[in-house]
Amino acid sequence: MTLSNMERKIIENSIRDIKDFPKQGIVFKDITTLLNDAEAYGVLMNHLYQRYKEYNLDYIAGIDARGFIFGAALAQMLSIGFVPIRKKGKLPYTTISEKYSLEYGVDEIEVHIDAFGKFQNARVLLIDDLIATGGTANAAAKLINQAGASCVEACFIMALDFLDGQRKLKETTDVYSLIEVK
Amino acid sequence: MTLSNMERKIIENSIRDIKDFPKQGIVFKDITTLLNDAEAYGVLMNHLYQRYKEYNLDYIAGIDARGFIFGAALAQMLSIGFVPIRKKGKLPYTTISEKYSLEYGVDEIEVHIDAFGKFQNARVLLIDDLIATGGTANAAAKLINQAGASCVEACFIMALDFLDGQRKLKETTDVYSLIEVK
Repeated sequence: MTLSNMERKIIENSIRDIKDFPKQGIVFKDITTLLNDAEAYGVLMNHLYQRYKEYNLDYIAGIDARGFIFGAALAQMLSIGFVPIRKKGKLPYTTISEKYSLEYGVDEIEVHIDAFGKFQNARVLLIDDLIATGGTANAAAKLINQAGASCVEACFIMALDFLDGQRKLKETTDVYSLIEVK
Repeated sequence: MTLSNMERKIIENSIRDIKDFPKQGIVFKDITTLLNDAEAYGVLMNHLYQRYKEYNLDYIAGIDARGFIFGAALAQMLSIGFVPIRKKGKLPYTTISEKYSLEYGVDEIEVHIDAFGKFQNARVLLIDDLIATGGTANAAAKLINQAGASCVEACFIMALDFLDGQRKLKETTDVYSLIEVK
């Protein structure tokens, strides 16, 4: 199930372009205008619920911090647990971690070692607001699998298609992006 | 409406104590075990929904990053908008900001200047996972009011009562904490 044209229009129109953020030459996709528009936020979450209610998911995992917003709301709608994947040093219990490359340097994300422990080979949906080069998402999908669960799909509100992140991520998991920015 | 004894027990039992995090002598309240327990997470969110459905709220505002989890899910349940309050430098559009004191030094949080713009004097619920000394929450409540909205209540899953944050915050807004840690 994908977006209807009307749903797509409502969601696209609610996202704001911010030029030169966080630095010169980048057009930042601001989803705060989607979130504070009750209609658009409702259309988005209802679409995600309709798509994923038949997936037999055990958990939603969301990436720090905008992935928490969509992920926690969807987990509540599906009556399943939510697992935060965080920047290094934020999670208090024993973690497993995964490094990934940035434009300059390396970053690292973590998940609690027992996060998916209640189910054998738990079925997990990974969620974030946006996929660009896919470095963080790839590391997150690998983390889920290393933690003994199975990342069955990664879902993004937007994909910056020209950065090719989706193609690379498809080597690790299925990918669904609601809106593709060409 | 407050928690029933059974609801309180389910929620309390799902929160994990982590000794000496983030530093020696501190017992950290780990809510990831609440979130990944579908029953406890459901009981919690249903309680928040039952309490707040009669408040005629226009927005939920959540504090970066754990406040995003509960806030976004509750906003979806109430069919209203969600507004993120973030650490300085994270929001892409024009912001207003508020400084607050830490144990050593000063920190700053921000909200988009037009975040609550759809309603005149919007009724806003502020939400976070935990209130300790209340510095961040107080700054957040003030920010909401400065942005032309009205912070009608601040809600926390837990209050560290010995740190007296609730009493101070009550000078700015009503306060509701589900669980008080003595």
